[in-house]
Amino acid sequence: MENGKTQVELAKRGVITPQMEDVASCEGIKPEVIRTRVAEGSLVIMTRGEVSVAIGKGATTKVNVNIGTSSAKIDPEEELEKARVAEKYKADTLTDLSMGGDIPSIRRSIYQHTTLPITTVPIYQSVAQQGIYSMTEDHLLNNIEQQVDEGVSSVVLHCIERECIEKLKGNPRIMGMVSKGGSFTSIYMLTNECGNPFIDNFDYIMETLKKNDVVLSLGNTMRSGCIHDPPDSPQRQEMHTNMKLAKQANDAGVQVIVEGMGGHVQASEVAGYVRQHKDAGDFPLFVAGPLPTDVAVGYDHIAGAVGASMAAGAGADYLCYITPSEHLRLPNVDDVKEGLVAFRIAAHIGDSIKFGARHQDMELARYRAIMDWDGQMQHAIEPEKASRMCPKRGPCTMCGDFCALEIMHDFLNGDNGTNGTSNTNDINGNNSNKMSVHARQT
Amino acid sequence: MENGKTQVELAKRGVITPQMEDVASCEGIKPEVIRTRVAEGSLVIMTRGEVSVAIGKGATTKVNVNIGTSSAKIDPEEELEKARVAEKYKADTLTDLSMGGDIPSIRRSIYQHTTLPITTVPIYQSVAQQGIYSMTEDHLLNNIEQQVDEGVSSVVLHCIERECIEKLKGNPRIMGMVSKGGSFTSIYMLTNECGNPFIDNFDYIMETLKKNDVVLSLGNTMRSGCIHDPPDSPQRQEMHTNMKLAKQANDAGVQVIVEGMGGHVQASEVAGYVRQHKDAGDFPLFVAGPLPTDVAVGYDHIAGAVGASMAAGAGADYLCYITPSEHLRLPNVDDVKEGLVAFRIAAHIGDSIKFGARHQDMELARYRAIMDWDGQMQHAIEPEKASRMCPKRGPCTMCGDFCALEIMHDFLNGDNGTNGTSNTNDINGNNSNKMSVHARQT
Repeated sequence: MENGKTQVELAKRGVITPQMEDVASCEGIKPEVIRTRVAEGSLVIMTRGEVSVAIGKGATTKVNVNIGTSSAKIDPEEELEKARVAEKYKADTLTDLSMGGDIPSIRRSIYQHTTLPITTVPIYQSVAQQGIYSMTEDHLLNNIEQQVDEGVSSVVLHCIERECIEKLKGNPRIMGMVSKGGSFTSIYMLTNECGNPFIDNFDYIMETLKKNDVVLSLGNTMRSGCIHDPPDSPQRQEMHTNMKLAKQANDAGVQVIVEGMGGHVQASEVAGYVRQHKDAGDFPLFVAGPLPTDVAVGYDHIAGAVGASMAAGAGADYLCYITPSEHLRLPNVDDVKEGLVAFRIAAHIGDSIKFGARHQDMELARYRAIMDWDGQMQHAIEPEKASRMCPKRGPCTMCGDFCALEIMHDFLNGDNGTNGTSNTNDINGNNSNKMSVHARQT
Repeated sequence: MENGKTQVELAKRGVITPQMEDVASCEGIKPEVIRTRVAEGSLVIMTRGEVSVAIGKGATTKVNVNIGTSSAKIDPEEELEKARVAEKYKADTLTDLSMGGDIPSIRRSIYQHTTLPITTVPIYQSVAQQGIYSMTEDHLLNNIEQQVDEGVSSVVLHCIERECIEKLKGNPRIMGMVSKGGSFTSIYMLTNECGNPFIDNFDYIMETLKKNDVVLSLGNTMRSGCIHDPPDSPQRQEMHTNMKLAKQANDAGVQVIVEGMGGHVQASEVAGYVRQHKDAGDFPLFVAGPLPTDVAVGYDHIAGAVGASMAAGAGADYLCYITPSEHLRLPNVDDVKEGLVAFRIAAHIGDSIKFGARHQDMELARYRAIMDWDGQMQHAIEPEKASRMCPKRGPCTMCGDFCALEIMHDFLNGDNGTNGTSNTNDINGNNSNKMSVHARQT
């Protein structure tokens, strides 16, 4: 890899980098195809050390886990535990959203204890440290630079235009603006009566990100906060602004992800929104959720998994998880695990729509057909919980003596009870004999 | 209501029954429309005492909860508790699948402690009491009659044809046959070298069901047991047999539900399957799940909620819940609650696709916009868990001092800080003041 050049720059020159080789092998895509997609911007490689994660066209759907303190709950040890749990249960990336306590120190500690690519929203630190009404452009730019130097893999910038914020005034939305980073950026612009600091300094920021080949994630300020707030003119304007900036970033040699359509979207609209985004620009699409209902409070990871399955199936590339505590409190460690597993299920279902039914499902079913519990657990998306619940051998306690698989086995497999290891007249028979019969079924 | 006449018979004569009035009011559909649909069979009214539940065309999607002992786990008290939890968390119907212990006594006890319509699969009791290889046609018919006399609201019969079972032999399915009732019925037919006992005695059974206006549920023996077992000729044959029998039942004056497409179905196929069923016959469609992936073991309620949202959105009328313990063990009380809530979310999302976004979501969002937690909980699908997790007032601990709603409130609502109850320069200010400002937002 040529010194000081980014993945996009090298891709455009025809160079296949080690990171492209890595993700090519992992995704089962030819390295040359990966290179082309990195060059055109339809796929990004988020990296940290030896870890490379492909997000975008042709890659499996990835899942991001948000962690981080808030001003109301500062427990760095718990955040570390969340980070560990996120890695253990196979998040693809982590985002540290800390706004409480010694933020740089918490971030360093997360770096020390994790290996996954880490995203930040630099304005969070500016607001927490310098104050939402007193932070300056220099604070914002310095924070980006500091976090790039630290080794962040991606930064989120909310590139909302002044005009777009003004449009929201008097807009009939129920929920107004629900993006935290978007609200910080908006208040900065309103307080200082200025344009968007990230757009105004876009070229400078691109040079900063290029120093460490950091992925730019274009934030989604205008997303809906409830399913009754329909897509409106501010949302569309932000989408087009983001697509224009994404093109500029790609031209500048910076990898870029576009956040869009997250939040709350009616189920019937999810696929259409994803297509709208993809039609507006073929960049990796990052969605938070979306939640197709507002009433699943306490169970938003489930509602989110429904929306995310639909979004991923329609072409979203990268999902931000939602936990059971969304809208209620900072998630605890269990919430992180529950949210992550729900979203890995959603990504998997989405991939079955994108790419066809997955081999992993077939493998699990083959073991299920012969009641091989260990084999099933090897292919389960999260085997720990299931392992605690399943029997060691034979049918589960739901079926007991009356398992359809056992009952129908001999007939369907042409064994009429003449084989000594099985007896159709004795479905309460010895399971180990049954198992040896079933084993021939695969 | 004329003595001894069923809902279908009365509907066909133009009579609007008290049950039709009840569900008309509950569903917001004109009584005359309900009557027409009951007459043509596109909607059924499952009743028990004063409770009437509409399932089918134009009605909201309903959720069924399965309970019951197995031969491996017999704890009647726990089953009762599951029934209570199912009622508490708003199941629409209950199905007692008990196969262990004193089945009639367990069923009586469930009747005593519940008010919801109850479905049974009479062959379960025949198999448990008379034995799968020794039960006779008389046993089967007597069990149906006994359960009808007891006051069951609906019975499931697996009307699979002999030829259809034979087709499954040597069929390349990974999972063979996974329907328990279907496997019992199949073994009865194979053991006795006879036709399907329910089809052979269909007219007699219709007369039995009419005695108490019991809804016939046509079971789904041939459903797929994994997403890699695609729809095949036995599945299609069963669907057409069921539709033919549904027409016969309706002609005989019996309300009828068709079970179909449950089990395991690739996400991309779910909507198409539902349309196929609806094209084959406009009867209420009952689906179990479907599960769009096999790898979510331990989390099948989440995968099931994804599949069920899609199925309901495409037109399925009635969902059988799936619990986290599906494929692993008999569900415990917590599993029942988790599965039920997940499926109520799915039914709600499905209804938002069928009928447009629901008013309940808007109500919740309006309270969320003003951080009125009590108001949100009133509209939450299951408020208990969320109530334990939410703050009493003000922003949640995820946002703490930095809540986008608070930060943007004054700008978006045209208040520039001149109002004494709010101050844009103090976002750490008194929440009760904030609340009074926000209250004006609705």
